[in-house]
Parts: sequence; structure tokens; C-alpha cells
Amino acid sequence: MNTPTSLANIRIVLSHTTHPGNIGAAARAMKTMGINQLYLVNPLHFPDPQADAMASGARDIVQGAKICASLEEALRGTIFAVGLTARRRDLSHEMRWLHEAAPKIVQEARLGAVALVFGTEMSGLSNAELDRCQLLASIPADPACSSLNLAAAVQVTAYETRRAALDAPVQRAQDVALAGFDEIEKFYLHLEQTLHATGFLDPAEPKRLMRRLRRLFARARLEKEEVNILRGILKAVNKNIEQNQ
Amino acid sequence: MNTPTSLANIRIVLSHTTHPGNIGAAARAMKTMGINQLYLVNPLHFPDPQADAMASGARDIVQGAKICASLEEALRGTIFAVGLTARRRDLSHEMRWLHEAAPKIVQEARLGAVALVFGTEMSGLSNAELDRCQLLASIPADPACSSLNLAAAVQVTAYETRRAALDAPVQRAQDVALAGFDEIEKFYLHLEQTLHATGFLDPAEPKRLMRRLRRLFARARLEKEEVNILRGILKAVNKNIEQNQ
Repeated sequence: MNTPTSLANIRIVLSHTTHPGNIGAAARAMKTMGINQLYLVNPLHFPDPQADAMASGARDIVQGAKICASLEEALRGTIFAVGLTARRRDLSHEMRWLHEAAPKIVQEARLGAVALVFGTEMSGLSNAELDRCQLLASIPADPACSSLNLAAAVQVTAYETRRAALDAPVQRAQDVALAGFDEIEKFYLHLEQTLHATGFLDPAEPKRLMRRLRRLFARARLEKEEVNILRGILKAVNKNIEQNQ
Repeated sequence: MNTPTSLANIRIVLSHTTHPGNIGAAARAMKTMGINQLYLVNPLHFPDPQADAMASGARDIVQGAKICASLEEALRGTIFAVGLTARRRDLSHEMRWLHEAAPKIVQEARLGAVALVFGTEMSGLSNAELDRCQLLASIPADPACSSLNLAAAVQVTAYETRRAALDAPVQRAQDVALAGFDEIEKFYLHLEQTLHATGFLDPAEPKRLMRRLRRLFARARLEKEEVNILRGILKAVNKNIEQNQ
């Protein structure tokens, strides 16, 4: 069974991993499923002999891992990011079981780079990290013991993604250019600055409003041209406000 | 999500395991998926502190593991045994991909005890062991790197079995109030007026821009509260512009 090309567009992002052995085991898990790009956000110990030892035949992935200073850096260039999380949160993005999310992951990976993001061993992804993702996915574990080892979670996620990639009928790529992570973050920044300028943003709780707006636009999956339009609107608003001062 | 009763009839059988850490990691993998019976056929080192350490919250499974002198002993009482093995063409047994085998595993587990059998880390199940199984199942790994870690294979197998055992996942609709047609149309009107006021809307082609924006927000399926937020923003923008005039 050959590796579908969509898997080549998928990167595994491990944020603030504590145990280097888990990095190696995750690399092996990825490689068995044909996913070969590993990004590490501030790993506690890396490089480390334990990572190499646990990688077994996947040392090339460990050695080629990209070390990033922030999740933003690891997501650069992606058009879609999925956060793996055990918990359901009230102020959350779209949430799916992993097997429901997998076809979507594969579909997006046909259009551009996709990140599957995993948090620390102890506490998973922070809210700020979840806010950088467009979709949250959850492995349906037993509630009595729901905490998978990090590499085991990577294994199941990579397996399910590969399964979806092998199953998926070949669809023609959509004829629209989706906005990338960087463009969208710049738009959010522009939006936040503009809302400050209008006086609408509550200075006491600026983050709450921005999280709501991020959630709205994440659901819409902004296209490049739409980001241009939205930023054009913000520019026009700012011009009006400046004339007022 | 509760544990389906069929999973209680499933046992994981590890034959001649070399590394005790893998036994512990396999126990954890099982437990996260609601499978709690572990049988060990002639483990090389057991009991062992490494097994306990890797088990994390699944030490009860490690400590309750049944040690057997032969695979026959581990299969006693079962009505169905599935051997996990990398895809091979020289075998005359019935062979299925894991996800094809999983519904059958669950169906049998509703009737009686079922064993999922895993061989050694280095060479998997022997032919004699495979002959004790009624079905062989294979994880569709990448041919370039098809060897999963033992505990990772147990994790994927337990996950796929749990997935098959769970009734079609019923996801409760999110408890959010979606905005109605009228509210959304009022928002579009408000947006169009505001864009006029800012001077952003091209008077020659007003409809084209509004159609683009409608399309964007339609994809997002606006919630009531989001419409309120968006209209609050428009109000703040308008106030700024009026002060300017």
C-alpha cells in the first residue's frame, strides 16, 4: 500500500515535550504511517540519545526535526491546524472525534500544509495554543483512563489519518486559494488594532472578544481574497478614524 | 462515552515479549481503550519495575496479568483468536486489514471471550502461533517502515476495536443559538451601510463585494451572540465616522 501524497503535506507538531524518549517514539509512530515531517516547539531535552534510541528506524525523522521557538513558527505556511485534546472545553472551536476529523484532515492536506498539534505530556495544549488551531480532535478513550501516552496518541492519530488517506476518493482540488496561517494572524492583529482604535474592544477583557472572533473566522476557513477584502475594510475604517483625530 | 460490554470479553495476549517496558506501555494502551485483560506468554522479564513505570495509571492491569506457559494456555476459554501480523503473502490464513477485522472481533466478543494476539518485538508471531488463530489482521503501515513498536500496535488495535464497539458516535448538538435569517439580513444591511460610510464599498460594484462577504459569513453559520458582537463593532465604527463629519 503506497503512501498517499496527501500525507506528505502533513506535519506533526509536538509542543513543549518533556521526555525526549516520547519524541523518538512519536517519530517512529509517524514513520510507520507515512508521515515524515516533525516540528518541535521548545522541547525540554533535545537532541537527546533517548530520542534516537526510541526512534528505532525513524532516526532520520528525529534528526530532520525542525526546532521552533513558538507554535506560530511551527504553523508557518500551514493552511489548516488540528489540535489533539482530551478535554471538551466550553469556549472551544469545532470539536470532532478523530475518526470524524480524519477525512477533513486529508482533504485539506490535498490543498496545502496541515499541522496535527500535540501538547505536553502532563497537561496537553494550552488555551492559547488551541486558539491557533481551526479544529480540535479527540480520541474516544475510556473515561476511566483517558490519558494516552504522547507517542501512542501520535500513533493513533497518524493511523487514522493514513486510513482516511487510503480510503478517500480522489477529489479535485478546490479552485480557491485558502489564506495561510501568517496572513490570517496578520489580519487578526489588524482587526484587534482597529477595534482598539474604534473604542469597541473592552480594555479589561480584550482577549475574550478576540477569541470569539477567531472562532468565527476559523469556522469560515478564510480564502486569500477574503483576507484581502477584510483588511481593505479595516484600512478604510482606520483612515476614517485618523481623519477624526 | 462508556465502555461497551463487548470490550470486557476481549483479552490482549503478548507472546514472548522481550522488553518489560513494552508490557507496561501495552497495558496503558489497552486501558485507555477500555480493554483490561492482559495475558503474557513466557515474558522474558516479568514482573519488572520497568513494566510498572511504563504502565502509568494502568498498573492494576500489569499486576493482574495472567502468566501462561504456552499460547494454548492463554487462549483457553476463548471462542475466537486474532493474530496481529505484518502483511505477508505466504500465509494461507484468512487475512484482513485491522479495520476490516474489527467489526468481526466485536461481533464475536458479544458471544464469548476473544483474544488479540501479538508476537515478539523482533519477529512477531511464529507460524505455529498463527496456526492457533482463526483470523490474521494487519495494520496498514507504510511499506517503507512497517514495523510498529509493540505497545503502539496494541494501541492501534485496541483503538480500532473500541471504535468498532462503540455505537455510531452520537454527538450532541452544541448548545449554541444560531442567528436567524432576519438577524443576519439586518447585519448585512448594517455592514453595507457602514462600508458605504467608510468609503470602502466600490459604488460601481457594491453587490460584488457584499456577495463575497455573504459567502464568507454563510460558511461560518453565525451564532446570535456573534451577530451581536459584529453589530456592536459596526456601531463603534459608525460612531467614529460620525464624529468625523
